[in-house]
Amino acid sequence: MIAPHLVERAVRIALDEDLGLAGDLSALAIPPDQTSQARFLVKAAGVVAGLEVARVASALVDPGVEFEFHFGDGDRVKPGDVVASVSGRTRSLLTAERTALNFLGHLSGIASSTRKLVDLVKGTRAKIVDTRKTTPGLRALEKYAVRCGGGFNHRMGLFDAVMLKDNHLAASPSITEAVARIRAPLGHLVPIEIEITRLEDLEEAIAAGANVVMLDNMSPEQVRQAVTQTQGRVILEASGNLNASTIRAYAETGVDVLSVGAITHSAPNLDISLEFTA
Amino acid sequence: MIAPHLVERAVRIALDEDLGLAGDLSALAIPPDQTSQARFLVKAAGVVAGLEVARVASALVDPGVEFEFHFGDGDRVKPGDVVASVSGRTRSLLTAERTALNFLGHLSGIASSTRKLVDLVKGTRAKIVDTRKTTPGLRALEKYAVRCGGGFNHRMGLFDAVMLKDNHLAASPSITEAVARIRAPLGHLVPIEIEITRLEDLEEAIAAGANVVMLDNMSPEQVRQAVTQTQGRVILEASGNLNASTIRAYAETGVDVLSVGAITHSAPNLDISLEFTA
Amino acid sequence: MIAPHLVERAVRIALDEDLGLAGDLSALAIPPDQTSQARFLVKAAGVVAGLEVARVASALVDPGVEFEFHFGDGDRVKPGDVVASVSGRTRSLLTAERTALNFLGHLSGIASSTRKLVDLVKGTRAKIVDTRKTTPGLRALEKYAVRCGGGFNHRMGLFDAVMLKDNHLAASPSITEAVARIRAPLGHLVPIEIEITRLEDLEEAIAAGANVVMLDNMSPEQVRQAVTQTQGRVILEASGNLNASTIRAYAETGVDVLSVGAITHSAPNLDISLEFTA
Amino acid sequence: MIAPHLVERAVRIALDEDLGLAGDLSALAIPPDQTSQARFLVKAAGVVAGLEVARVASALVDPGVEFEFHFGDGDRVKPGDVVASVSGRTRSLLTAERTALNFLGHLSGIASSTRKLVDLVKGTRAKIVDTRKTTPGLRALEKYAVRCGGGFNHRMGLFDAVMLKDNHLAASPSITEAVARIRAPLGHLVPIEIEITRLEDLEEAIAAGANVVMLDNMSPEQVRQAVTQTQGRVILEASGNLNASTIRAYAETGVDVLSVGAITHSAPNLDISLEFTA
Amino acid sequence: MIAPHLVERAVRIALDEDLGLAGDLSALAIPPDQTSQARFLVKAAGVVAGLEVARVASALVDPGVEFEFHFGDGDRVKPGDVVASVSGRTRSLLTAERTALNFLGHLSGIASSTRKLVDLVKGTRAKIVDTRKTTPGLRALEKYAVRCGGGFNHRMGLFDAVMLKDNHLAASPSITEAVARIRAPLGHLVPIEIEITRLEDLEEAIAAGANVVMLDNMSPEQVRQAVTQTQGRVILEASGNLNASTIRAYAETGVDVLSVGAITHSAPNLDISLEFTA
Amino acid sequence: MIAPHLVERAVRIALDEDLGLAGDLSALAIPPDQTSQARFLVKAAGVVAGLEVARVASALVDPGVEFEFHFGDGDRVKPGDVVASVSGRTRSLLTAERTALNFLGHLSGIASSTRKLVDLVKGTRAKIVDTRKTTPGLRALEKYAVRCGGGFNHRMGLFDAVMLKDNHLAASPSITEAVARIRAPLGHLVPIEIEITRLEDLEEAIAAGANVVMLDNMSPEQVRQAVTQTQGRVILEASGNLNASTIRAYAETGVDVLSVGAITHSAPNLDISLEFTA
Repeated sequence: MIAPHLVERAVRIALDEDLGLAGDLSALAIPPDQTSQARFLVKAAGVVAGLEVARVASALVDPGVEFEFHFGDGDRVKPGDVVASVSGRTRSLLTAERTALNFLGHLSGIASSTRKLVDLVKGTRAKIVDTRKTTPGLRALEKYAVRCGGGFNHRMGLFDAVMLKDNHLAASPSITEAVARIRAPLGHLVPIEIEITRLEDLEEAIAAGANVVMLDNMSPEQVRQAVTQTQGRVILEASGNLNASTIRAYAETGVDVLSVGAITHSAPNLDISLEFTA
Repeated sequence: MIAPHLVERAVRIALDEDLGLAGDLSALAIPPDQTSQARFLVKAAGVVAGLEVARVASALVDPGVEFEFHFGDGDRVKPGDVVASVSGRTRSLLTAERTALNFLGHLSGIASSTRKLVDLVKGTRAKIVDTRKTTPGLRALEKYAVRCGGGFNHRMGLFDAVMLKDNHLAASPSITEAVARIRAPLGHLVPIEIEITRLEDLEEAIAAGANVVMLDNMSPEQVRQAVTQTQGRVILEASGNLNASTIRAYAETGVDVLSVGAITHSAPNLDISLEFTA
Repeated sequence: MIAPHLVERAVRIALDEDLGLAGDLSALAIPPDQTSQARFLVKAAGVVAGLEVARVASALVDPGVEFEFHFGDGDRVKPGDVVASVSGRTRSLLTAERTALNFLGHLSGIASSTRKLVDLVKGTRAKIVDTRKTTPGLRALEKYAVRCGGGFNHRMGLFDAVMLKDNHLAASPSITEAVARIRAPLGHLVPIEIEITRLEDLEEAIAAGANVVMLDNMSPEQVRQAVTQTQGRVILEASGNLNASTIRAYAETGVDVLSVGAITHSAPNLDISLEFTA
Repeated sequence: MIAPHLVERAVRIALDEDLGLAGDLSALAIPPDQTSQARFLVKAAGVVAGLEVARVASALVDPGVEFEFHFGDGDRVKPGDVVASVSGRTRSLLTAERTALNFLGHLSGIASSTRKLVDLVKGTRAKIVDTRKTTPGLRALEKYAVRCGGGFNHRMGLFDAVMLKDNHLAASPSITEAVARIRAPLGHLVPIEIEITRLEDLEEAIAAGANVVMLDNMSPEQVRQAVTQTQGRVILEASGNLNASTIRAYAETGVDVLSVGAITHSAPNLDISLEFTA
Repeated sequence: MIAPHLVERAVRIALDEDLGLAGDLSALAIPPDQTSQARFLVKAAGVVAGLEVARVASALVDPGVEFEFHFGDGDRVKPGDVVASVSGRTRSLLTAERTALNFLGHLSGIASSTRKLVDLVKGTRAKIVDTRKTTPGLRALEKYAVRCGGGFNHRMGLFDAVMLKDNHLAASPSITEAVARIRAPLGHLVPIEIEITRLEDLEEAIAAGANVVMLDNMSPEQVRQAVTQTQGRVILEASGNLNASTIRAYAETGVDVLSVGAITHSAPNLDISLEFTA
Repeated sequence: MIAPHLVERAVRIALDEDLGLAGDLSALAIPPDQTSQARFLVKAAGVVAGLEVARVASALVDPGVEFEFHFGDGDRVKPGDVVASVSGRTRSLLTAERTALNFLGHLSGIASSTRKLVDLVKGTRAKIVDTRKTTPGLRALEKYAVRCGGGFNHRMGLFDAVMLKDNHLAASPSITEAVARIRAPLGHLVPIEIEITRLEDLEEAIAAGANVVMLDNMSPEQVRQAVTQTQGRVILEASGNLNASTIRAYAETGVDVLSVGAITHSAPNLDISLEFTA
C-alpha cells in the first residue's frame, strides 16, 4: 500500500522527463486510431513490485488504456510470467511503455533483492530492513518495494526516529547523557536508536533508555554475544558487512533486525518487458 | 556540465524526503554551535560523479558549510581517495550527509559502470551509449553521470529523436513508407533511428533515409557484416546482450555505437562515505 | 528549530496570497528610496514564536531589509516588549508587514496558549502535548510553536506512529489481535499507541505490547487509577476534557502525557504590531 | 462559492502533511475491504462552513467514498446536528477524517465567530467585514468562511485596493497630495481607502477623492459624528476595539462597515467530530 | 514595479523550456572560462520594458554575470540605443540570451504599442487601458508593460472587479436589479462596471449605482452624447473598434477610459538583439 | 498533437491568473442553476489552433460543460464559422470564456500567420520553420500552432540540437575545429547546424560535418548560389529578412528551410469570440 498521490507525483515527473515539450515523436508513425494489446512479460526470476505504478503511468498517458493485473505486488515471478496486460491505442501504449517499465523494473529489482535475503534468513527471528540509502526522489516507492520483498522499513527519514551515531555521541560526555539530552525535547512517541561499535557500550545504551541498539560492523560472534547479554531488553539491530554470503550467520545469532543498504542502492533491475501481442 | 536548476530541484526533493515536517531530530543531540570537518572518502575503485550535487545538498541545508573539491567529476578514484571535504556546523554536516552521499554513490556508481565498459572497448571506434532505461526522476543526472564515465548519451527522451521499433514499423507496409510517414511532419533537425532485427532490412533502412540504424540483438558476426555492408553510409548502433563479457567482441566489429541499459538501471552504488575528522 | 525550506515555502505561499499579480498598490504612495525603521511591538503577555519566519518574510520581499532579533522564540514577553526591529526601504517594510505579523501573531498565540497549560502543570511529571488538530498547511510551524511554548509534539501525522482508536480496534476480535495484526507489517521503530475508553482494557493494551496507552475522556480519578495500576510499564496519555480549569487535576494523577487539541486549533493570536519609529 | 482549484490545492497540501511518505499506518489494522458509515456530528452551536472542502478531502483520499450533505455552508447548526454523512471503505474514511475535520472545524469556527457579530448588529446598516489578518495559506478559504457567517470581505490582499495608513500618508505633505500621487498610476477600477485617526482629517480625505474612509480606533461618539458629517459622501469604516461587547454601539452610529481581525485570526474551532455508525 | 517573485517565476519557466534536461549543448563549443561583453541593442523605435526581467534571466543562469542598465523601463528608445550591457562568462551570456530577449522584445512590444495610442490621445482626458486579453501565463508582466507604455490597467482578473456584460444582465429583469443582486454579497471595495450597448441604458446604469459604465462598440458621436449626458456622475469607458485610426476621435469625446485589447494580444515584438562586443 | 499534461498545466496557470483568490465575482449575477449555450464564432479569416486547449479550459472550470468541436486544429476558417460550441451552466461558460479565447486567439493567430507564409511558398521545396523566439511559457503550444499552420519546428530549445553562431565559432580557430570540438562530447543523435554569414564559409561548414547550414541574412541570389554549390550535401536554411514580401523569392532559390521568428513573436491574434445563443 502506498499513498496514491505519491504514485501519481512520481509518475508525472517521469512522464515529464520523457515527453518534454514535443511529446512522443515516434508515435506519429502510428495511425492515431490503431489499437493494440500488449503484456508485461517477466524475463528473470524475482518478485514483482510496482504494478500499480505501471498502471498509473498508462492511465496518465491515456485514461482510455485498459490495464489488467495478473499478479499482485509481492508475488514471486519467473521467466515467462505475464504480470499484467494492457490494451488501447497503440500510440498510448508505446508512449507509456518506458515509464511503466522503468518503475516496474526498478521496484521489482528492489523487491527481488530483498526477497533473496529474506529467504536466506528464513526460520530465524531476524527481519531484513532497509536504510535511508535510497535513490533520491523515490524513497517512498523504494521502501514500499522492500515491503513487497518481505522486508521491513527502518525509519523513513531524519524526522521519524532518532539514530545516534558516533558523531552524535561524541558531542556528549557519555551515552547516558547523550540520550538524556536528546530525549528531553522530543515527544513521547519518538523512538531512539543508538549505534555502538564496541560491545562494552551495550549495557550503557540499554540503561540509557534506547529503544533499539544497532551493532555496527560487528562479527556474528559479537552479535550473538550481544543477543545473549541483552535478553530482550531492547531491540537489537546489526548492520554492516551484510550480504548474501554472510547474512545467514548473522540471522542465526538471534538478532532482531538486519539492515542492508544494498537492497535499495544497488539492486539491479528485474528484467520485465512489454510484448505486443496484437 | 548539468543545468544548475535541475541539480537544485533534485536536491530539494531529496532533502524534503529526508527532513519531512520535523527535520533532523538526531541533530538535536549536537550543540548548535559545534563545528566539524569531514571528508568524502572513497572505499572502492571507480569514477566519481555528482560532486557538485553533493555540494548543493550541503549548501541548501546550510549556506555556511564550506565545501572543497579535491577531485573532479569523471576522475578515476581508488579506495582511500578523499574526493571532497566539508567543514561547518556539525548539525548541518550530519543533516546533509545522507542526501549528499545518496547522490554521490548513485551517480558515481553509474559513472563507474560506464567507465568499465568504455575501458573495455578502448582502441575501437565504438562509443558506449546509455538508453532511456533510467531511474524515474533522475534522467538528467544519470545521463550526466554516463558522460562522466566516458560514455555518451542516446536521446534524452521521446521528444528529441525518433526511434522506430518493430511496433512502429508494423503499422506501415514497409520501412520506406514508415520513414516517409514520420519524416513528413517533423522539422529538419529531428534525427530518425530505425531498429532492425534482421540484416535483410538494413539496405531498406539506409535507403529510406534513416540517420541511424540500430541492430537489435544481433551476434557480433551479424554486426560485423552490417558494418561491412554499410560502409559508413549511416551510423550503426548495436543493442542487446551487451555486458562486460561480450562488449569487446561487439566493439571490434567496427560498429559506431553500443547502447547499454544496465549502466543506468542496474549500476551498483560506488561506496563513498563521510568521515568526520574533527 | 524548524527546517528552513519549510519556513520559506510557507512564507512564499503567504506572500503570494497577499501580493497577487499586481503587488502592493498602496506602496506606490511612498517614494521608492525612502527608508524607515520599525519595531515589532508586543501588546499582550505571552510567549513569542515565529521570529525567524517574520525575518524570512522581510527577506523574501526585499533582501536589503535589516532584521534584528531582540528576543528569541520561546521567550516570555509582556506588553511593551520589542521582539525585533527592522530597517530598510519603507515600501518593503510595509509590503512585508502583514505577512510577518500574521505568522508571528498566530505562532506566538499557539506558544502562549501552550505555555499557559505548561505553567499550570508545573511540578508534575505531565507533559503538554499537541495533536493532529492543526491548521491545514501549517502543521510543521504550529508544532514548532508548541515546542516554543514548552509543550511537546505528538505524532506529526498518520505516517510516523500508529494510533489505534475504537474504530480500528472494532475491526479485530481483541486488542491483542489488533496490535499483533498491525505490528506484523511495521518496522521495528514504529511506536504503537492504543486509545482505550474503559479501564478494563488497560491490562490487555499493555500486555498486547502497546508503547503508549491513551485514556480517552476519563476522569482524573480514573486516570489516577490507571497510573497506579500501570506502574510505569507503558507511557500513559490522557486526552479529552482538558483545559485550563481541569488540567492541573489531571496532571497531578501522575500521568505522563496530556494532549490538548485546543492549543493549536483554537489559540487566539498574540497581539503584536509593527510600529514605525522613523 | 469558492474556486474549486483553490479547495483542491489546500486539501492536497493538508493530506500531504498528514500522510508523509508512509501513509496512514494505523489503517493497516483494518481489512482493506471493510466498509463503514460515519456522520459529521456537530457538538456546539454555530454556523457550518467548509462542507465542500471536507467532501474534497474524502474524494482525494478515495474517489469511491460517498459523501452526502445534510446542511449547507452558512447554515446555523446546534449540538446533535449531522451536517454530512460518508460511507465507503473504512480505511479511507479514517485516513481522510482528520483532514476533513481540521478544515471543517476551522472554517466553521470563523463562520460562527462572524455570525455572532453579524447577529449583534442586526437592524443597523453596518456590515461586519474581515481583514488581511488571516492564517497564512488559507486566505481564500477563510474569507469564504466569513461570507458563510454573514460577513463581507475587505480587500483580498495588497493588490486589489489601496489602503493609505499613517505611514503612507506621512510620506506626502497632505492627504490630498497622497491621494493624487497614488491615483495617478492606478487604473480606474482601483478603490482607495484612507485611514484617519482624527476627525479633523475627514473632510480632506473625502475631498481628496477617497472611496472609503476608515476611522481608526475612534469611540462610537466620534464615529457617529463622522457619519453625521459625511452624509453618505463616502463609505465609512470603523476599525479597532471591536468585539462582542462594543460592536453594537459602533453599529448604531450609522457607520457602513465594521472590520474585525479577530473573526479570522482568533476564532476558536467549532467542535465537529466524525462518528462511525456502522 | 512588479513583484520580484512573479518575475523570477516567469523566468524560471522560460529557462526550463529552453534548457530541458540536457542544457545548452551549443555552449560546449566555448571554453568554460572565456568571458565576453555584450549589449542589448535596439533596432526599432519604441518604448523599452522588461529590463529587470532580462537581468533576472541572466542572474538565474549565472549569478556571476554583470548586468548594467543604460535605460529604464518606460523610456523611449530608437535604433542604435543600447538599453543594457552584460559581461561575464561567454557560455552564460549565450545561454541566457534568448530568454532575456524573448521577454524584452515581447514586453517592449506591448509598451510600444501602448505608447503609440497614448501619444495619439495626448491632450485629452482619455486614458488608454488594457483588457484581460493577455497572453496566458504573462498577465502580470504584460499589464506592467502597458503601464510602461503610459497606459493603465483595467481589472487584473475576474476577482478584483465586477463587469456585467449583456449575458450577465440578461439574467435579471433589469439593470437595476442586476446591480442590486451583485452588490448584495460583495464587500464595500469591489467596483462594479456595467457594459451597455445602447445609450438608452445609460441612465439606468448610473442610477443603479455602477462605478463605471462601458459603452460597447459605439460611435464617437454616441460616446460624446454619453459624456454630455453623464456630466461626470460615473466613469465612462469606451471599447470596441479602437485602433490607431479611430482612437483620437474617441478620445476627443471627453470619455475617461479607452480600453484596447490589441495592445496586449496583438502587439508585435520590439526588435532588440544582443550584440557581442568583446 | 500536444502532450495533454502540457495543455493542462498551461490552462491551470491561466485560470489561476484570472480567478485569483476570490474567483469570478461577476458570475454571482447569474443564478447558479441557469444554463446556456454558446458558440465560438470566427470573425476573421485564418487557421484555427487550440481548440483542445479551449476545451480543457472549460472542463477545468466545470467538468459538466459540454464541448463540441465543429472544426479541427489546422482547418482554414472564415468569418462566420463556428469552430466549436459549448453548453452548460451559464456561470461556468462565462468564467472559462476569456481563458479559452485567449488561448484560441493566440494560437490561431500563430497558425494563421504561419499559413500565410506557407501558402506563399507553395510549389517550392522550402519549408516554413519557427525559431526559439516564442512567448515565454508557451513554447510547446506555440510550436504546435506553427504545425497547425503548415509550418515545421526548428529545435525546441538549447537542448535538442546544436546551433553554432558567430559567437560560438569565434571561440575556435576554424569552423572545422569548432565542429570537431562540439561533436566530441555529444551523442550520435544530436544534429549540428552552423550559421554562416558569408558564402566563403559554406564549403568548410559542409566539410566539417554540419547537418544543416544556416545562411544568415543573405540575399536570394546568395541563397541560390549556396543551393547550387551545395548540391544537396547538407540541408540549407535561410534566415533573416523573411516576410510576406520577400519569402517567395527566397523559396524559389531551392533552399530547404526558411525560418521566421515573426510567426511566433509577432503574430496578431485571430479574432474569435464566444457568442451566447441561448
